[in-house]
Amino acid sequence: MLQIFGSILGVSGGFVLGKEGPMVHTGACIANLLGQGGSRKYHLTWNWLKYFKNDRDRRDLITCGAAAGVAAAFRAPVGGVLFALEEAASWWRSALLWRTFFTTAVVAVVLRALIEFCRKGKCGLFGQGGLIMFDLSSNVPSYGTQDLIAIIILGVIGGVFGGLFNFLLDRILRVYSIINERGAPSKILLTITISIITSACSYGLPWLAACSPCPVGSMEECPTIGRSGNFKSFQCPPGHYNGLASLFFNTNDDAIRNLFSRGTENEFHMSSLFVFFIAIYCLGLVTYGIAVPSGLFIPVILAGATYGRIVGTLLGPMSDIDPGLFALLGAASFLGGTMRMTVSVCVILLELTNELHMLPLVMLVLLISKTIADCFNKGVYDQIVVMKGLPFMEAHAEPYMRHLVASDVVSGPLISFSGVEKVGNIVHALRITGHNGFPVVDEPPVSEAPELVGLVLRSHVLVLLSGRNFMKEKVKTSGSFVLRRFGAFDFAKPGSGKGMKIEDLDFTEEEMEMYVDLHPITNTSPYTVVETMSLAKAAVLFRALGLRHLLVVPKTPGRFPIVGILTRHDLMPEHIHGLFPNLRKSH
Amino acid sequence: MLQIFGSILGVSGGFVLGKEGPMVHTGACIANLLGQGGSRKYHLTWNWLKYFKNDRDRRDLITCGAAAGVAAAFRAPVGGVLFALEEAASWWRSALLWRTFFTTAVVAVVLRALIEFCRKGKCGLFGQGGLIMFDLSSNVPSYGTQDLIAIIILGVIGGVFGGLFNFLLDRILRVYSIINERGAPSKILLTITISIITSACSYGLPWLAACSPCPVGSMEECPTIGRSGNFKSFQCPPGHYNGLASLFFNTNDDAIRNLFSRGTENEFHMSSLFVFFIAIYCLGLVTYGIAVPSGLFIPVILAGATYGRIVGTLLGPMSDIDPGLFALLGAASFLGGTMRMTVSVCVILLELTNELHMLPLVMLVLLISKTIADCFNKGVYDQIVVMKGLPFMEAHAEPYMRHLVASDVVSGPLISFSGVEKVGNIVHALRITGHNGFPVVDEPPVSEAPELVGLVLRSHVLVLLSGRNFMKEKVKTSGSFVLRRFGAFDFAKPGSGKGMKIEDLDFTEEEMEMYVDLHPITNTSPYTVVETMSLAKAAVLFRALGLRHLLVVPKTPGRFPIVGILTRHDLMPEHIHGLFPNLRKSH
Repeated sequence: MLQIFGSILGVSGGFVLGKEGPMVHTGACIANLLGQGGSRKYHLTWNWLKYFKNDRDRRDLITCGAAAGVAAAFRAPVGGVLFALEEAASWWRSALLWRTFFTTAVVAVVLRALIEFCRKGKCGLFGQGGLIMFDLSSNVPSYGTQDLIAIIILGVIGGVFGGLFNFLLDRILRVYSIINERGAPSKILLTITISIITSACSYGLPWLAACSPCPVGSMEECPTIGRSGNFKSFQCPPGHYNGLASLFFNTNDDAIRNLFSRGTENEFHMSSLFVFFIAIYCLGLVTYGIAVPSGLFIPVILAGATYGRIVGTLLGPMSDIDPGLFALLGAASFLGGTMRMTVSVCVILLELTNELHMLPLVMLVLLISKTIADCFNKGVYDQIVVMKGLPFMEAHAEPYMRHLVASDVVSGPLISFSGVEKVGNIVHALRITGHNGFPVVDEPPVSEAPELVGLVLRSHVLVLLSGRNFMKEKVKTSGSFVLRRFGAFDFAKPGSGKGMKIEDLDFTEEEMEMYVDLHPITNTSPYTVVETMSLAKAAVLFRALGLRHLLVVPKTPGRFPIVGILTRHDLMPEHIHGLFPNLRKSH
Repeated sequence: MLQIFGSILGVSGGFVLGKEGPMVHTGACIANLLGQGGSRKYHLTWNWLKYFKNDRDRRDLITCGAAAGVAAAFRAPVGGVLFALEEAASWWRSALLWRTFFTTAVVAVVLRALIEFCRKGKCGLFGQGGLIMFDLSSNVPSYGTQDLIAIIILGVIGGVFGGLFNFLLDRILRVYSIINERGAPSKILLTITISIITSACSYGLPWLAACSPCPVGSMEECPTIGRSGNFKSFQCPPGHYNGLASLFFNTNDDAIRNLFSRGTENEFHMSSLFVFFIAIYCLGLVTYGIAVPSGLFIPVILAGATYGRIVGTLLGPMSDIDPGLFALLGAASFLGGTMRMTVSVCVILLELTNELHMLPLVMLVLLISKTIADCFNKGVYDQIVVMKGLPFMEAHAEPYMRHLVASDVVSGPLISFSGVEKVGNIVHALRITGHNGFPVVDEPPVSEAPELVGLVLRSHVLVLLSGRNFMKEKVKTSGSFVLRRFGAFDFAKPGSGKGMKIEDLDFTEEEMEMYVDLHPITNTSPYTVVETMSLAKAAVLFRALGLRHLLVVPKTPGRFPIVGILTRHDLMPEHIHGLFPNLRKSH
């Protein structure tokens, strides 16, 4: 069933064109929209979409959407699967692998058909490059020991630059988030400022570059006529071209293609490459985070390729490898240093360039640059997640968690419901707290001794209350009223921002004094831990099962059968360090 | 730290040469040996290996070893990572991705160096094909709608053949396992029989084929001189070659290369291909499972390629695609139909053939053949795991598990230890059961009421008993004696078959009456579930956390604080169906 969905995503992925950041975003957005059952606001709803209104399917769909985005942006279907695996999904299952593969396979087929359709130049720059954007495949490159040393150094420096990029980006994004929070005018002003800086750089800097005479016997036109090409004339006299302008005044795709191209050792002056590198590195930093749909991949590849070409040109006399291949390795080192992805970057670069012979070197460079950069800070996407304050669970529990137990971090007074609870109590509890889950405990006379029944979700309680099946007496029912009163999908997960709110419900004095039976909507098999469970192990449980709530039960008998509820927020370092200020931050 | 290990594995992976089955096995074996701290029997031990004597590191090492095996066998480093991800590891973590990547990167570099070294023909057939074994890269293939239909049909039939292969292989392996269990003579006899059948087929069948005249203007020698080549003369007169002999009398690698080769539409007679297909399909079935190191990948690729070439030759007049590319797609369809892997097969084929342009078609074929074959049975590796009776947990819980609770399947009488237990009781319990974990419960006078302390492992209890730190009185100690008496690694996981046994320990009557404090070696944070927990959820817990034991605790207070222990065997379908014969087997 989800496969059908995957193919819808795949087809939309194939049609959406652009760059990685917005593509991944667009893919994920479409997926989320489908997962909500369409948009009611824009009258785009389908009834059958209701089957996917649950956490797991929605999470899977968003992962598939991200994969479709990368697959379409880089025309790299396998790379898309691996990107989703390595970066997007914190909770991987083999079914998900198959679903993302399905999605990107459809993307690949649709993309291939569109490229075929656009071959006659009907679609602007879209068809350019075919399915392989920067095709490098040619003769088998040969390399020896001295090349390996050069490549190791390239990887090390690339890793340092990547780590620095992440560090600076984190600082800049923190400033931007303060500016962006001030409202739309500040946002627009920031965007305009960055646009002006970008334009000034792009137009101003080429004036610094000297004109070069056109190479003799080149296959390409020189100077270039039209939109793309290696030789932009700019201010130069006829028969000459401006190398820096050739990089700045092309699409990013063409600039990358120029940098990767082989047999063009002397096409770009060293000074042009150097200026372009600094400009692109800085512009890449300041552009991400403003209110435009831009990504990180292409700026990083561009900066890395320029860096690689600089190294390649410098080492030219000593090395057999073409500067174009050095540019590829430079791009790999920057990607490894900023994204910290390995397998997916490998495959994406392979799918972008069709240069399988370089794979061992690309792997080596990625290995080195990731290792080096990991000494300084975290990957760029992890940094952004932390900065946004999302309760993202690390794969490993923090070392200090080993010294704490589950009950140490349970926060706030515990609010629990009786199996048959007074409506007034429920309404009060929902009003004064924002909790999304409440433990349900049967107490005498319903049971002999207090006994944990399970967990109810806020959203389910609200739906139940809206049905107004209240009773005068505190007695357990058969639960059949729920089946009579509600359909199977009334309790399905509502779309974002569309859930019922407690403020929407009004009850009379009389209703508030009545009782409602929570048993039919209670999850009677919630995951529980004993209060003395190591916090590290509880964190692993959260991460491995993708939990939202974890019930903490007492160790010794005879006490109230629930100690508290753990949520992801309770396991965040900020919360724990707030409770235990003397805890050492790292091991 | 594990990275160092990965690189050792990587280097060994690079040096071990052969085919996928034995390669994966070899890689995993070396990894397991390292994870045991070397082999004491052959005096290959290193002291620092003791740091990896635990379940998780050993599991990771075996996964890395498998990845190294595939990477070396197919010269496909990224494919190796994905194979390990998709097939070998049931419990994936991002750290593992990085470790397998590290391992295969080292494999790639070592392999590259070895190929370079062997370029001058010093190493027999090893250097052949370079880093890309079956290089197909050439012009961009073009295909239209009628080709797509042909490819979809190819995928469907390939899926059927793949499913049939799995079905037949399962039956044959069941017969073989009965034969192999009879001892070495039967094993050898079986192997000899299969060898004779294989030889008879290889030598006898080519006599059926007619001789073809050598193609005019071919680049290759015809008939072939030496070991490899497309045109074997066999019984034919000079200037002629035998197509069937060209397939049978080559190495499998060369046969695949011949089948994949382009521009050779008429090289193989339809009848030759047909005979070869049937022979290879059947020989592949009967060879796997006999006592020789053979794999499944290469026979399946070979059969698939032949099948694809047959389809390609049949459709020749209607299709633009070369029969060589059809052979590639046929191989993909068979791999998808038997292995049921998608992403890794895609990448392995890409790395084998360097044919990126066919990627969308390969993905499409894999999609179709896997879907079709999934209708019939499970993937070949899953089947083998089931047949071997290993307690392999499915990623999903079986539907009938939703109707059971944890306490339903807890088996046997519960054996638990007191926190301070009489030595005689422990020895008795260890002798009469084979359990690997025992719950520890504090009882008066050690605690006020019976209270669950945690779980002790059999191996740890044995080590503790061997220390003979016994007491006359039943009192709780500070636990410091364990620190004084044992080193940090005495409790480390022993290598397979090397653990202490209860039969190795002898105690006097007096010692049997003494007490030992189990608290210092008790895991006080075991994962627990309430007895009413849905069995489906308990199974998910097992799988997601990679558990071996799960404690089942009572729901209502006042009872003995432990109901039983769940193990993987308790969750196997056979065990559950044994307990509940009326349970429906499927949903």
